[in-house]
Amino acid sequence: MAALVSDSLAKENNDKASENSTIQVIGGHGTNSYSNNSSYQRLSANVVTKKIEDAIMKNLDVETLSSTSNIFRVADFGCGVGSNTINSMQDLLLIVEKKHISQCPTSSQMPEFQVIFNDQFTNDFNTLFTYLPQDKQYLVASVPGSFHNQVLPKSSLHLAHCSYSLHWLSRLPKELRDERSPAWNKGKIHYTSAPPEVLMAYATQFAEDLDNFLSARGREMVSGGMIVIVGSSIPDGMPYSQVVNGIVYDCMGSILMDMVKTGSISEADVDAFNLPIYACPPGEFIEGVERNGLFSIEVIELMNPAPWLKGPIDIPVFVKHVRAAMEGMFSNHFPSKAIDELFDHLVLKLSDISQQLESCYRDGLQLFAILKRK
Amino acid sequence: MAALVSDSLAKENNDKASENSTIQVIGGHGTNSYSNNSSYQRLSANVVTKKIEDAIMKNLDVETLSSTSNIFRVADFGCGVGSNTINSMQDLLLIVEKKHISQCPTSSQMPEFQVIFNDQFTNDFNTLFTYLPQDKQYLVASVPGSFHNQVLPKSSLHLAHCSYSLHWLSRLPKELRDERSPAWNKGKIHYTSAPPEVLMAYATQFAEDLDNFLSARGREMVSGGMIVIVGSSIPDGMPYSQVVNGIVYDCMGSILMDMVKTGSISEADVDAFNLPIYACPPGEFIEGVERNGLFSIEVIELMNPAPWLKGPIDIPVFVKHVRAAMEGMFSNHFPSKAIDELFDHLVLKLSDISQQLESCYRDGLQLFAILKRK
Repeated sequence: MAALVSDSLAKENNDKASENSTIQVIGGHGTNSYSNNSSYQRLSANVVTKKIEDAIMKNLDVETLSSTSNIFRVADFGCGVGSNTINSMQDLLLIVEKKHISQCPTSSQMPEFQVIFNDQFTNDFNTLFTYLPQDKQYLVASVPGSFHNQVLPKSSLHLAHCSYSLHWLSRLPKELRDERSPAWNKGKIHYTSAPPEVLMAYATQFAEDLDNFLSARGREMVSGGMIVIVGSSIPDGMPYSQVVNGIVYDCMGSILMDMVKTGSISEADVDAFNLPIYACPPGEFIEGVERNGLFSIEVIELMNPAPWLKGPIDIPVFVKHVRAAMEGMFSNHFPSKAIDELFDHLVLKLSDISQQLESCYRDGLQLFAILKRK
Repeated sequence: MAALVSDSLAKENNDKASENSTIQVIGGHGTNSYSNNSSYQRLSANVVTKKIEDAIMKNLDVETLSSTSNIFRVADFGCGVGSNTINSMQDLLLIVEKKHISQCPTSSQMPEFQVIFNDQFTNDFNTLFTYLPQDKQYLVASVPGSFHNQVLPKSSLHLAHCSYSLHWLSRLPKELRDERSPAWNKGKIHYTSAPPEVLMAYATQFAEDLDNFLSARGREMVSGGMIVIVGSSIPDGMPYSQVVNGIVYDCMGSILMDMVKTGSISEADVDAFNLPIYACPPGEFIEGVERNGLFSIEVIELMNPAPWLKGPIDIPVFVKHVRAAMEGMFSNHFPSKAIDELFDHLVLKLSDISQQLESCYRDGLQLFAILKRK
């Protein structure tokens, strides 16, 4: 069951969290690094591969797409540092090759493949490159920069992938920190269990980000190209407090408020801190894609991100995953001593409510969508 | 005069030096980092900009090159870590823009520009990205991998730049370490002052590397695209012992042999170590390009890399530059204690012969060539 939570928490996207802080997962290969704590993410990726294969075999016209230049470019947006991005890209290439053989059985020439890794400028691309297999049969490029802007040349991209990255907001709505606003998020660090105005502020920002993402990809992609999107979601209308992530964020907020009482941190610091994470329900996602207008929706569904994981959660291991993905956000805002305290208390607090965690809703928390450039 | 030496020593290319070691300049921003010790390289780059502008204004057909896709790609091969590569690329873009305005005065649409940074997988691309200006008006990608192989899609590149990188050999000829070979380089670390068979082994490897470089660029570049090459050279027939670099390498070899006597390192270690650096004379370069056959030579000349630098060399500063560029090669082979000893002694030894250094030949030590894809 741990994957249910860690999948939606742990993607190592480094999007800017606010004007003052940058989300940064732990790079390198150390004990707390994302690369050593992302096995759950790989499991989740395998689940969707079959669905991607079905969609590509059915709907991606690889012959036309690569006909003019004989190059086929695949990009991962929000690639992060671990080997998951490389595995995902290689899975996609295998599927595209299969489609090419099936669509062009008489053609002896496979297109050249270029795999493009995109993430923020602060992403640890050096470490990412160490994961590339020496005998790789494709060209590689890294493209730094926010995926809310255009980062690739116009009409140069054929297939895009974005896994557990879109939920990172490009910035935090200012009203969350505005005492005079009904969306002031006092004593909390997320919209979970917060007033509806807080949720609305998050949703509005997500809608703007999604539109920017789609417009940027719209410029970069050739007509007929596809985007595979996998990420955090929740059934339309369900409060976030009913899912494990929400409970974790509530616990974190409550631990931080306890730390205010003991003097470890200030109340103003907690009031000023909000997690830039939004799990978009499918209804809002569909609305956003339709409003943008550049893509058709080929597939959209909610999935259980980890149906194979049953039984009790190993809380310490689970918190280690959460920490690998989220530590950067906290350490940009709170003193380093407070970070250990937060995650140590999180282990205790979640252990106390492990029954509640296990009985949470966990089916449809992963959005899987395939969009096609019109 | 210092730039005369440091220019040809200090380019931070990370090509593989041999099967057992990888050249690595010092990344990051520290005291001994290349990024803080590469001001001479920038001065040298400015000298050639005017010549590049002349060649592009005269011979590069930017209208035709970017007509099919409206994208214009510029790549730096062996980009390294410092801001020099970014400045060089921006200079090239300004020239291409100027040519575009002059060639297409009625066209309102400038092509999109993508700047591509290439270097070995071990290059510190993370630090390189921190030097990019926030308001840059071009797209960026890094492409890791040896430039002796194809690293970009076929026919995708319009303008290439390679500055002080080609002199790094892809590997050291095995015979340099073979006791039974006439090219065994006993007690020396370079072909300077070595038997002619040693020079021949270096030259043969360089010719192979140049051919691989040109063949790879030949695949990547569109017809009519240009490569600008700037790098270490020497007039045809001149022994390397007549130039400052050669004297420095001889001093290093002799210091290492002194360190053998004091027991700091073993004689076998010195015999097994050779600098993978070859300064190709123009005659050999022309032969190599013609043998390869994919490019025409638009411009080729020998230049003085730093005609403006006169007077005595500041030896400690100079050795600091040499160290920033070369330390990685030595530290992959010798114990770390020995490295400080080597460079400390180099300051003393070069100070003793500063008169000799200043009277060295220093005019035509920089090759400047522009090749055009047939």
